[in-house]
Parts: sequence; structure tokens; C-alpha cells
Amino acid sequence: MIKHLTVQTRGQGLLDITRRVNAAVAEAKLAEGLCTIFVRHTSASLVIQENADPTAKTDLERWLNRLVPEGDPFYEHDTEGPDDMPAHIKSALTQTSLAIPIVDGQLALGTWQGIYLWEHRHRGGERQLVLHIG
Amino acid sequence: MIKHLTVQTRGQGLLDITRRVNAAVAEAKLAEGLCTIFVRHTSASLVIQENADPTAKTDLERWLNRLVPEGDPFYEHDTEGPDDMPAHIKSALTQTSLAIPIVDGQLALGTWQGIYLWEHRHRGGERQLVLHIG
Amino acid sequence: MIKHLTVQTRGQGLLDITRRVNAAVAEAKLAEGLCTIFVRHTSASLVIQENADPTAKTDLERWLNRLVPEGDPFYEHDTEGPDDMPAHIKSALTQTSLAIPIVDGQLALGTWQGIYLWEHRHRGGERQLVLHIG
Repeated sequence: MIKHLTVQTRGQGLLDITRRVNAAVAEAKLAEGLCTIFVRHTSASLVIQENADPTAKTDLERWLNRLVPEGDPFYEHDTEGPDDMPAHIKSALTQTSLAIPIVDGQLALGTWQGIYLWEHRHRGGERQLVLHIG
Repeated sequence: MIKHLTVQTRGQGLLDITRRVNAAVAEAKLAEGLCTIFVRHTSASLVIQENADPTAKTDLERWLNRLVPEGDPFYEHDTEGPDDMPAHIKSALTQTSLAIPIVDGQLALGTWQGIYLWEHRHRGGERQLVLHIG
Repeated sequence: MIKHLTVQTRGQGLLDITRRVNAAVAEAKLAEGLCTIFVRHTSASLVIQENADPTAKTDLERWLNRLVPEGDPFYEHDTEGPDDMPAHIKSALTQTSLAIPIVDGQLALGTWQGIYLWEHRHRGGERQLVLHIG
């Protein structure tokens, strides 16, 4: 089963999409299987992170912003502004696709795991995800 | 086929799990397919690395420890100690899921590739993996 | 379906393999499915990146070369030269496997996404990829 999801982001940051992916998995009515999530962009990515304490999320963001700062004199590619090249680098260091087994009709996530879409552009936008459930 | 593996870690480091994954694949008796490994934690991750010279493994660990040091005044999230936030960041920079094709009944790993569970907490613990083989 | 691809690299850098993966997917004649790409090496990796402006590619390479420089006094592992250990680290920070859904018989890549094999050795070589399409 293929399922298309559109996620509206409102700026940089980690957006919890666990509920939406869970809903798609429930629809597929599969006792066992594999759910693969793919993001169709190179300036947004996927990551599985702690879903309990929100400071884990903000620390992760701040850490990566420090590692891949804007305005690095090093960058040649800046067609779409100072957050353009950092967005591509951050995407390369995280995930474009994630695969999660389905057990007893549900994603086999650990208790503290959430699935996040990571928007790397300040502006945000309409982000397209494709799910393969099989 | 879904297979659950529990791995006991004894502190930070790369633990070779190739043999255990191979055993699960052998059990599935599939000539061709895909084996997906998923780790149910956000402070341990997966990586495929060189299996020959042990210094490749220790250099990789030391390098990532330097990139993501403990005690960074930057972190707000330290509920579980100084290795808490670095563990989450290291997990985000490596893999939560890995997919390896099965060819002739075996994982299609290269000669020098081993599958590693990377424990990022000093304490270690009982780590849960879920394998999807299909 | 399993498909083996051999890619000849001529030195460090990102090599666009989108066309070759597309050709394998077309051969499989599958309306819907999942294409998993696996690289059988620990000194070359996979990444999905922008395919439009070539400076995005070169900036990404230069950035990672700066983060993981050669000649770091830190490395013990240098059996195969100064680019040996950096190659392993760069592979760990990017991808060994990538999964892309197939929709309407084609890879569900976004408009600006290309699939790249990232060679991390100066010398390059014959790189083996295994595709699982199902």
C-alpha cells in the first residue's frame, strides 16, 4: 500500500508525525509488515527521537544549527538564501527514508520513540511524504 | 517474518551483531528478500562498519565522542546524566533502521562489512531490536 | 527482485546513479513497491541530494571534508592511507542503505532529488550496489 501525506511546516524544527503515520498503518490492516517513510525533499528530513522531554528536541536542533551554521563563507550555493545550503547538509546528516517494522498491527516503536519531520528552512512549507506499507 | 532480538550492552561502544542477524536470516529460509533491522531506542543506534581492524571501530567512537562531547554548557536536557543528550544526538547522526538485501539465502554484506549496535550510554542496558525479514 | 549494479568511481565525490536505479526499477515492471539500495562498502555511501545546482554537491563535499579532515593526529587506523579513516567516518554519518517507494511504476523521488553514490577514497574503484525491488 502506498499512502501520500502532506505536512505543513511553519519554520525550522522537529514536527511530530507519529500519529499520522500510525493512522496510515491502522488503515492498512496488516498484522505484520514494514512501514517505510520517504520525504520528497532535500531541505527537510526524518529522524526518530525522544518524545517525552521537549528539551531533547530543542537541544538537538540547537546542536545541529551550531554544527552547520548559516553564513559560512565556505558556501557557494545560496540561491535560495542563507538557510539553503545548511538545509541540504542537515538533510544529508539525518534521514531521507526510515523503515519501521509493524508488529500486531502497530509500529514497533519503543516507548520513548517518536517519528519527526525535520524542517530545515526558516520559511517552512508544504512537505510531501510517501509511505510504503507492506 | 518478525524476529525480536535482545542485546545486552555493557557500556559505550560498537557491538558486532552480524552473527545474530545472520542466524535470524538463516531461520527465515528465504532465497531472496530484504532484512530490515530496527532499534527501539533513542540512545543506541545502528551502523555498518569495517569488521577487520578493531582500530577503525575505536577511531570512529573517539571521533564521535569529540564531535558530541559530554558537559556541553549548551545542553538543557540532562535528566539522565551528562551522557543523555550526547546519546540522542549520536543516534540522530547514525541510524535507527538499516535495510540489507538477502541474496542466495544470505545477507548481501560486503566482505569487510559488519553490522553494529552502537550503545551511547555509559551504563549500557538491555537493548531491543526488531527484525523484519521478507 | 534482486539487481546487482557495479559503479566505477574515479576519485572522491558524489556520483549521480539515479538513471541506473530508475532503469532497474523500470525492468521490474512493478506498479507499486519499494526499491532499497545497499552499498557493499564502508568507504563509500549513499545520499539523496539536490540535482539542480552543482554547487550544492560541491559545498556538501567540502563541508564534510572540513568536518572529517585527513591527517587528524587522533586516528590510529591508517592501514590504507590518510583517507582511510575519514572514509569510514563519512560513511557512518551518511547512508549505507536507502529505501524509495515506487509509485505508478517509478521511484517517488521529489523533483529536485537525485540518488548519489558518495565515493570517499581518493583512488576510487569498482563499487558494488545491491538493489532489492519488491
